[in-house]
Amino acid sequence: MAKLLKQPLKLALIQLSTGADKAANLSRARSKVLEAVHQHGANLVVLPECFNSPYGTKYFPKYAETLLPSPPSKDNIPEYEESTKNLYNTSLTFSPTGELLATHRKVHLFDIDIPGKIRFKESEVLSPGNKLTLVDIPEYGKIAIAICYDIRFPELAMIAARKGAFLLLYPGAFNLTTGALHWELQARARAMDNQVYVGLCSPARDMEAEYNAWGHSMVVDPNAEVLEQLDEKEGILVADLKEGIEEVRKGIPVYSQRRFDVYPDVSEGKVRWEE
Amino acid sequence: MAKLLKQPLKLALIQLSTGADKAANLSRARSKVLEAVHQHGANLVVLPECFNSPYGTKYFPKYAETLLPSPPSKDNIPEYEESTKNLYNTSLTFSPTGELLATHRKVHLFDIDIPGKIRFKESEVLSPGNKLTLVDIPEYGKIAIAICYDIRFPELAMIAARKGAFLLLYPGAFNLTTGALHWELQARARAMDNQVYVGLCSPARDMEAEYNAWGHSMVVDPNAEVLEQLDEKEGILVADLKEGIEEVRKGIPVYSQRRFDVYPDVSEGKVRWEE
Repeated sequence: MAKLLKQPLKLALIQLSTGADKAANLSRARSKVLEAVHQHGANLVVLPECFNSPYGTKYFPKYAETLLPSPPSKDNIPEYEESTKNLYNTSLTFSPTGELLATHRKVHLFDIDIPGKIRFKESEVLSPGNKLTLVDIPEYGKIAIAICYDIRFPELAMIAARKGAFLLLYPGAFNLTTGALHWELQARARAMDNQVYVGLCSPARDMEAEYNAWGHSMVVDPNAEVLEQLDEKEGILVADLKEGIEEVRKGIPVYSQRRFDVYPDVSEGKVRWEE
Repeated sequence: MAKLLKQPLKLALIQLSTGADKAANLSRARSKVLEAVHQHGANLVVLPECFNSPYGTKYFPKYAETLLPSPPSKDNIPEYEESTKNLYNTSLTFSPTGELLATHRKVHLFDIDIPGKIRFKESEVLSPGNKLTLVDIPEYGKIAIAICYDIRFPELAMIAARKGAFLLLYPGAFNLTTGALHWELQARARAMDNQVYVGLCSPARDMEAEYNAWGHSMVVDPNAEVLEQLDEKEGILVADLKEGIEEVRKGIPVYSQRRFDVYPDVSEGKVRWEE
């Protein structure tokens, strides 16, 4: 049987310091991507959620990019669609030659209100995406892309893993409340239940900004153990994803033990895809 | 809107020391249940998985009970069904007056093989149950019952919570390998994703036994924080479950944000129930 992860993959998550200067954000991201590739030998590089912009609904319209056939933008940004005048929180996946492989628009908008702690309402300016995203990278295998709050909906991870993903990637910007509560738990829960690698890529924490990101970008292995984790400061996390998914699944063989005669398989129903 | 947990509930999990003497196990369980009720004021008392027996496939046939109209047995035990000659791992739920409210037969048998660590194959002697179990306790609300390895299959928790359970109870006997890896993570993941209380009730650890239970019975709150936890020794955990589920769900309102237009709702498909 073919392995889900066909060969070892060096994954880099860039926990970028961003600010109000969009050109500076882009330039900083560029230099960190080059560092990840040239100094660390990364095969796959991830930038955090909305890396070209401060995180905040009032900033998204101003920092949004319109996607062109050859987009000037990279990875997760606010997106402006001219035909509908909609804004999205969008994660783009590119090949090393710049080919756009996949576009994930955040499906679950971040609308929460924990009194005295954190209130945020992306839906004030953003429209939600309507598709799950699985990207097949021929040399390595399939990866699933979702964004931040999407991780709270376990169906995305369950479906992607059952469709063959070896890695779930979530650019995300949890805050000091939800980060402390659930950031690591979300990553480990998705890895445990689905026996896949999980990567969360956050911006660096900036206590001068209006929204304080949690940081702590991390990679969790298919046994749900944290493989690598940053603190809250800017940095590049580099993790070696190796074979091992099949061994974990042989030891605790949930993939052959699920009881779809007792409850439905969520991956077998009607699912809307970007593939 | 009616609250899911209608009034505060004092939950007791009895982390029982069990051995090869079945009569002694029953007697010890009885005295601990009386202690939980009379000294701690518990409204709901849980005994661990297979509490009348050592945990091991060779013991189950010998220690199994046949369920009678007025069963002599209590809570989670090996069960023998005369008509089929099948053995099950079964959790019984009784009212305070001894009425049998629900019977859950473990749906997912514990068959795992982690080389050099732990191998166990319940299916060598046990047959699986074929139904999910939700018990409506009129004074308090609905609780879901499943057993140990069942917790690895998130569908049970997702379905039960979406059908109105305020508490998921898992009598369980993880071991020193899977306990260290996943016991707390399982409990917290189910609580977080479903914003419900979760209780795991283990036997006490006995390093003289063939199977060494993890212990660490615990109750997790709807925010996924550990409310109470025992160590590995015999003990009674008492936790006060209070209102608060609605507040958590208002703060992080995933119940109204799920995108069943993008992926199916596992609780709306065909589900086989014991209710």
